[in-house]
Amino acid sequence: MKKNFCIPGGDLRQLQVARKLTEQGYGVSLFGFSDYASDFHNVRLCDTLQEAFADADYVILPLPCSTDGVHLNAPYRKNPVSLKELYSYITPQMTVFAGKFSSPALSERGVTIKDYFLREELQVLNAIPTAEGALQVAMQECPFTLHSSRCLIVGYGRIGKVLARMLNNLDANVCVAARKRADLAWIRAAGCLPISIREIGERIAGFDIVFNTVPAMVIGKEEFKKARKDTLFIDLASKPGGIDFEEAKICGINAIWLLSLPGKVAPLTAGEIIAETILNIIENQAAGTAEESERTNP
Amino acid sequence: MKKNFCIPGGDLRQLQVARKLTEQGYGVSLFGFSDYASDFHNVRLCDTLQEAFADADYVILPLPCSTDGVHLNAPYRKNPVSLKELYSYITPQMTVFAGKFSSPALSERGVTIKDYFLREELQVLNAIPTAEGALQVAMQECPFTLHSSRCLIVGYGRIGKVLARMLNNLDANVCVAARKRADLAWIRAAGCLPISIREIGERIAGFDIVFNTVPAMVIGKEEFKKARKDTLFIDLASKPGGIDFEEAKICGINAIWLLSLPGKVAPLTAGEIIAETILNIIENQAAGTAEESERTNP
Amino acid sequence: MKKNFCIPGGDLRQLQVARKLTEQGYGVSLFGFSDYASDFHNVRLCDTLQEAFADADYVILPLPCSTDGVHLNAPYRKNPVSLKELYSYITPQMTVFAGKFSSPALSERGVTIKDYFLREELQVLNAIPTAEGALQVAMQECPFTLHSSRCLIVGYGRIGKVLARMLNNLDANVCVAARKRADLAWIRAAGCLPISIREIGERIAGFDIVFNTVPAMVIGKEEFKKARKDTLFIDLASKPGGIDFEEAKICGINAIWLLSLPGKVAPLTAGEIIAETILNIIENQAAGTAEESERTNP
Amino acid sequence: MKKNFCIPGGDLRQLQVARKLTEQGYGVSLFGFSDYASDFHNVRLCDTLQEAFADADYVILPLPCSTDGVHLNAPYRKNPVSLKELYSYITPQMTVFAGKFSSPALSERGVTIKDYFLREELQVLNAIPTAEGALQVAMQECPFTLHSSRCLIVGYGRIGKVLARMLNNLDANVCVAARKRADLAWIRAAGCLPISIREIGERIAGFDIVFNTVPAMVIGKEEFKKARKDTLFIDLASKPGGIDFEEAKICGINAIWLLSLPGKVAPLTAGEIIAETILNIIENQAAGTAEESERTNP
Repeated sequence: MKKNFCIPGGDLRQLQVARKLTEQGYGVSLFGFSDYASDFHNVRLCDTLQEAFADADYVILPLPCSTDGVHLNAPYRKNPVSLKELYSYITPQMTVFAGKFSSPALSERGVTIKDYFLREELQVLNAIPTAEGALQVAMQECPFTLHSSRCLIVGYGRIGKVLARMLNNLDANVCVAARKRADLAWIRAAGCLPISIREIGERIAGFDIVFNTVPAMVIGKEEFKKARKDTLFIDLASKPGGIDFEEAKICGINAIWLLSLPGKVAPLTAGEIIAETILNIIENQAAGTAEESERTNP
Repeated sequence: MKKNFCIPGGDLRQLQVARKLTEQGYGVSLFGFSDYASDFHNVRLCDTLQEAFADADYVILPLPCSTDGVHLNAPYRKNPVSLKELYSYITPQMTVFAGKFSSPALSERGVTIKDYFLREELQVLNAIPTAEGALQVAMQECPFTLHSSRCLIVGYGRIGKVLARMLNNLDANVCVAARKRADLAWIRAAGCLPISIREIGERIAGFDIVFNTVPAMVIGKEEFKKARKDTLFIDLASKPGGIDFEEAKICGINAIWLLSLPGKVAPLTAGEIIAETILNIIENQAAGTAEESERTNP
Repeated sequence: MKKNFCIPGGDLRQLQVARKLTEQGYGVSLFGFSDYASDFHNVRLCDTLQEAFADADYVILPLPCSTDGVHLNAPYRKNPVSLKELYSYITPQMTVFAGKFSSPALSERGVTIKDYFLREELQVLNAIPTAEGALQVAMQECPFTLHSSRCLIVGYGRIGKVLARMLNNLDANVCVAARKRADLAWIRAAGCLPISIREIGERIAGFDIVFNTVPAMVIGKEEFKKARKDTLFIDLASKPGGIDFEEAKICGINAIWLLSLPGKVAPLTAGEIIAETILNIIENQAAGTAEESERTNP
Repeated sequence: MKKNFCIPGGDLRQLQVARKLTEQGYGVSLFGFSDYASDFHNVRLCDTLQEAFADADYVILPLPCSTDGVHLNAPYRKNPVSLKELYSYITPQMTVFAGKFSSPALSERGVTIKDYFLREELQVLNAIPTAEGALQVAMQECPFTLHSSRCLIVGYGRIGKVLARMLNNLDANVCVAARKRADLAWIRAAGCLPISIREIGERIAGFDIVFNTVPAMVIGKEEFKKARKDTLFIDLASKPGGIDFEEAKICGINAIWLLSLPGKVAPLTAGEIIAETILNIIENQAAGTAEESERTNP
């Protein structure tokens, strides 16, 4: 028999998670969306946490779970709900799915918490909306087309790979800076021009747009000194980021830090990815396979 | 000896035209941009029309030349200038380049007017910023990624071809509706799915985004009745367009008409295309080749 | 009620035509293939022309219909059949489909002959196997990969367009030479480097492979004098071709003329294209639409 | 001061290695090619090993070094040379570069041996000629175009990734079978259809071409039983391969094992990759960086 999910709070992503789970035949109780999901089939819209958690086997917490550390992140609900109250409904019989989340309180009570955000397949699939979001912002900011523009991507991890492919496919001239020789080989195989991270400074004036994906300072004072004033800089790296924004400001250069793009630019796609990842975790659990090797390295 | 251009009024496109022409060694006088082009090399910034038209061999009018039919379109100038005054400086010895423009007054005085907007190469190159602009708006409006989305493009002319290629390269599932069998063959050769214009209605519910490029009513009451409420409709066709916006509104469907995208989303690219086209016309004139066959059919 | 086709002689293409027509519900009689089509469902294998032509509404002649002008082109049949005998079975009630074919004898007797080879959609679709065949030969002949190779394509008609796209997609550096400015614009839109036909000579030494698609002498003595000895030349133009093979030989340069590639490198695909084109003609006839405009200009 | 290389024996790859090294300013002595490299600039053609090894700092052995275990692999030389004689010229002062090579005799004498074939960047770059070679053979063997064909690639390692991209870019319908969920995510990001390795059997009848890249039996009796007779199977996996060729023969199915493609289909490209990798190793040595992490895992 298919199990029941309780989804308290969250944004459009959680709604899409609910939709995907019901399509797979799971029972889903939503809390905190009353008016927004009235056209959903087979979803139970609940006004109280008690109702929402009745019969729940799995709980999916929003991303982030809380924005103030005290209340549940539930932008579509008027009255705030405290995390404390929420947690009181979670029992050790339930499995909690959450992203970038830990709760000593829950762990101590023996509740199993699965962080779907650490799964490699989620990180890979999230690179798609992230890269598209970067394209969107670049298109909005630039008075020229990406077609024929000269772009530098710093780093060839997940986002770098997907972004390089998209820009290349839109006929930008794509250069990718990486450190390892194997990455430089992959960049060439992908039809882009590989350069060493060390060459960024001397070449930076030749680019119209620079995208950073490396979470370590790679574009700083030295680079901005040599850069053109009309080059756009976009940082896609998670904190601490890789662009010195203070320095960009001083130089009068447009530099933008884009964080958590999937939920912002494509919440439905982001929700589908989360749903799929959670189902993978459940399937692995059932099969008794940990797939440890698939976890993302921090 | 290289000739002199006078460029009165206009927006960023005209500035880029000026930059490109000076790069080619032409003399350029700008009127209506005083503060905005102060960092341009080799461009003469003029405060008066008299100064701007001195020594002019060629005149490039903005696009459009006027927004009210009375004054020059000069958004970067404070004090308005009448077309009448402007025209008084144009002599039969000058060649006037303009887009979507005709002036009986000038023609009667024997002034040669060249409409660069009718040139096929300009129309083709303009399809690139137009298609990118369509992608940008689609990305902004849709809560999902273009990657894996199901897109329909109606029409396989210049914009349809370029847009289909871009969407296909971004891994959208691209279907293109056309009438002629040869076009259906080209669509297949381009890796997209061809359908007949007649099939649009029966298939429309299967698409997440519908782009129209045909300037004749193709998406009307019948189609909207069968469409999903969450499908985005984007009309890229010039007037009269091809989507019934009234009907879309009644059905509560998001439909957007995007006109004159190149100048809006990529004025620098649009300016380069104009400069290049004008230089082609001059080169053809010098060579005595009309290239009549290259003119766009209205 | 669906009609009956008689398919006398021909190669694998005709077999594939037969298969596609039976899939569409048509009756098909094959003559000249006895052993080769024994596993075909719903196809009538005939030993005599009389049997094959019984009940025939349509006749599909092979391409070419005859290789000696006297006998039917039937490579899979032992005993030769004269065209004269074949024609005696064709009545004015039948419609004859053939490629690059004319027969005053049949026309005088009032038989309708449809040349499918003149249809634009067939020519477009045939560009796909032609371009793939060119890639295959280039791969066989070159001791280097197409990836990163420098290729010149002369001409941007059907084959030039499809070949440029394929080479570009395989990460070759693709340059296309054309005459018209609109074509140069399309080449740029396709992500390739456009050059003027006039520049071929001065640039030819920079290419590893040169593909010609223009049926007029474009690569002759002057070009070969400037070319490298290790550049491969492939001519895809129909007669009279566009490469001076005598001159290539004198210069010790490898030049290959590839004709009628679809039937040679991809007979099944070529057969499907023929079947589809014939069905289009029949559909047009039924609808009373001539689609004159879709005919290829000779 | 630039160092000297001695290159004894080998095929076109070694010639290309020599050319690239001289372009970088290194001294190069070739042994075993007398007539074939007469047009090379700055290469010393040697008739004796003694001459070739004089002043040598580096030695590059052919791939494979020997085909019989006794003599040097030197196809362009008439008189055989024993490995024993060859080795007698190698001193501990020299560094030996070789591929898939070990020699206790040399190691015991204190000679440093660097296996360039273990370097990750070489393996990645070699995937390009390997994938192109696979395309070439598929084109030769199939009576249909890759365009629109249905292809399955088993495995998403280096070759799988590059091949999937090429086939996708040629408009084949590309399905890739992999085991790990992260790989399935990457396959989707690349615009291909991911399936589980477990699904191969049930889906195999839907493919026109199956490429295996996994060096473990994945296509055996069970799969061939369900496969169509006209599907082409190509094995690109190194020994022991992943296709049961005996079983294919019994079923009358065309299955081809392609090994060591880079040297066969694109020796010049393969040579360039080897030269580049050797220069990387030398540069790393000079910089004192082991780049251990870049070594291929066996």
